[in-house]
Amino acid sequence: MKSANGTAANAAEQLATIARGASEILVEQDLLERLASGRSLRVKAGFDPTAPDLHLGHTVLLNKMRQFQDLGHQVIFLIGDFTGMIGDPTGKNATRPPLTAEEVKANATTYQAQVFKILDPERTEIRFNSEWMSRMDAVGMIKLAAQHTVARMLERDDFRKRYDEERPIAIHEFLYPLVQGYDSVALEADVELGGTDQKFNLLVGRQLQGAAGLPPQIVLTMPLLEGLDGVQKMSKSLNNYVGIEEAPHDMFGKLMRISDELMWRYFELLSFRSIADIDGLRRSVDEGRNPRDVKLELAAEIVARFHSDAAAQQAQRGFIEQFSHGALPSNIPEFDVHTGEVGMALVNVLKVCGLTSSTSEARRMITQGAVKLDRQRVDDLECTLAAGAEYLVQVGKRRYGRIRLSGKS
Amino acid sequence: MKSANGTAANAAEQLATIARGASEILVEQDLLERLASGRSLRVKAGFDPTAPDLHLGHTVLLNKMRQFQDLGHQVIFLIGDFTGMIGDPTGKNATRPPLTAEEVKANATTYQAQVFKILDPERTEIRFNSEWMSRMDAVGMIKLAAQHTVARMLERDDFRKRYDEERPIAIHEFLYPLVQGYDSVALEADVELGGTDQKFNLLVGRQLQGAAGLPPQIVLTMPLLEGLDGVQKMSKSLNNYVGIEEAPHDMFGKLMRISDELMWRYFELLSFRSIADIDGLRRSVDEGRNPRDVKLELAAEIVARFHSDAAAQQAQRGFIEQFSHGALPSNIPEFDVHTGEVGMALVNVLKVCGLTSSTSEARRMITQGAVKLDRQRVDDLECTLAAGAEYLVQVGKRRYGRIRLSGKS
Repeated sequence: MKSANGTAANAAEQLATIARGASEILVEQDLLERLASGRSLRVKAGFDPTAPDLHLGHTVLLNKMRQFQDLGHQVIFLIGDFTGMIGDPTGKNATRPPLTAEEVKANATTYQAQVFKILDPERTEIRFNSEWMSRMDAVGMIKLAAQHTVARMLERDDFRKRYDEERPIAIHEFLYPLVQGYDSVALEADVELGGTDQKFNLLVGRQLQGAAGLPPQIVLTMPLLEGLDGVQKMSKSLNNYVGIEEAPHDMFGKLMRISDELMWRYFELLSFRSIADIDGLRRSVDEGRNPRDVKLELAAEIVARFHSDAAAQQAQRGFIEQFSHGALPSNIPEFDVHTGEVGMALVNVLKVCGLTSSTSEARRMITQGAVKLDRQRVDDLECTLAAGAEYLVQVGKRRYGRIRLSGKS
Repeated sequence: MKSANGTAANAAEQLATIARGASEILVEQDLLERLASGRSLRVKAGFDPTAPDLHLGHTVLLNKMRQFQDLGHQVIFLIGDFTGMIGDPTGKNATRPPLTAEEVKANATTYQAQVFKILDPERTEIRFNSEWMSRMDAVGMIKLAAQHTVARMLERDDFRKRYDEERPIAIHEFLYPLVQGYDSVALEADVELGGTDQKFNLLVGRQLQGAAGLPPQIVLTMPLLEGLDGVQKMSKSLNNYVGIEEAPHDMFGKLMRISDELMWRYFELLSFRSIADIDGLRRSVDEGRNPRDVKLELAAEIVARFHSDAAAQQAQRGFIEQFSHGALPSNIPEFDVHTGEVGMALVNVLKVCGLTSSTSEARRMITQGAVKLDRQRVDDLECTLAAGAEYLVQVGKRRYGRIRLSGKS
């Protein structure tokens, strides 16, 4: 691991690494100066305290944090437990019960197990904002609220939209960005990282630090990673994600199904390979190399990160065997199924494509172990196929189909 | 003093007294039911914790509180010290320094000395909202803020106006009406009184009580009393007021200078005489009685309230002597002076009317004790004449003028 040192040349090099894949850096000149100071910078990123189950979309930010660590900086993994423990203060949202301190702690433990697959524990400070927020009284909250105006808060896209559409905004929602901003004051962050959708809140932190007489933090936003469909952002509810705790085989298979275009995006935001390396791969494809082979490298790198090199090699072998060998009929029929964004249950897909006569038959066949998806037996009656993906389906001995699910209805 | 008793007839009678002079009662039917319950109601009114120096405008509300007391109800004189001790949290307003607990206490003592000239101490509870607000933490503040929406808060006239004019509204300003509303929850108020300009805030209290599972308070607004000019609301800064600690002679003289029309308004809002009595006076004037004689009764009643019957009689005698007797020249010239809303300094008036050749001469004459205003020697070089009023001015032995100041420029 390199240590941060303060020569200007080194600062420029660091900046190139930091800027990779970033949407925006505010203000780049400030960042360059702090890098040149040779100090180990305090780099903050905030995370939700609800039960974590991270997918590759979340790791875009974690990767950037890791890059800062590799450059010798200190990362602060901030868990926003203060508001999580309040729950929904309007009482209207029963699906957002307040978290207990025990739940927060348990979730933090799960977080650590997951994020330390990417982050360096030695340069990671895990903090909870309840540490300072639970000591704040109503007067402190009022003074914090006085630091921002209603008009500026209504400039935030989502607030503006809801206000214009006459959908209610409860006043406490104006306080939450201020709490997040105050966290930067309490932590004396040099840099705060977040998704592009967080830019407004990150700038509030910058402003509050300035008002508190601290040097305002640099704001660095990362793009939101597209899901497997290449269109929508990766999310569980859209079922277009790769969870970082998924089995090697599943993870590998999902990554091999992305489009070639999306592959380059994933290289930029998910691979740890250097920009020069990736440019080399791109040239090789331009010169005729099969993109599938490059995709194998990406899939293997990512599976290795969250499992092991051995697991990655095994998943790769399995994948190649499935698709390259095996006695498949020569003329497998192809189906395009139009589904909603969340994909479609396998039993419905089988019926729609005529691979079974009904969903009951589909269920029976699955129960009998007679249905295979990408050559793997399906055990789960609730199995859902993702929108935007392509599958090889086998029912019994003779019925085959190549099924493409389109997320646009 | 009558005690509250619960017959329906009594409730209707009480309501007639309570409704006298009121702008609005929300909801009258609720009030009627609570009056009919025979319970002693908890009647809240909030006051600023800054140094009090009350004028007759403030007493409109105090009189209404007194009427509730006379009907057997409990009045809560709430001093909003919590926000006063915060001061201006934006730090932009140097003229609003935070009050210390000692200052709040001293101001409260001054308040008591003044308001107990009207209120019955036996049925008055003096409370400070710091009692519950200083125990509230940031979580409590957030939960309070969650009870109201941004859109509804922007419906308040002054917020709406500032927002539309793009003048800044700091977010904590949205919290203050909620604090005031929460006071009603903490106090379990049955009724809250306030000026018409307070209606929005009083309704917030009603809403928060409902959300807290309490019966929502009845909101009763009183009109803002016009000042001596009969146009603008009574206020110190407009110099159209009668302070309740002014000397009997001054108070009497100021009240005798109001218009006949304004006199009836003052009877309604400031006199303790019954509606029937006042109707009788009005009839007598319609039948030819000199309105000045009725005005003498009003002035005497008010001076007696804040001083004593003896002081009122003396002031009345002095006033009559001044204006009815004394060797005044037969043809005193009259002057109409157009001034700004705040009136005009006497030295300028003298010059403008040609009663002195210059303001320096005016100053010299005052210093020599040679200037009289309504027959009283003027000692104060800074003496200012009120807009909307009429004065008899004498300079030296021979120079006289009847001066009318008009507030419209």
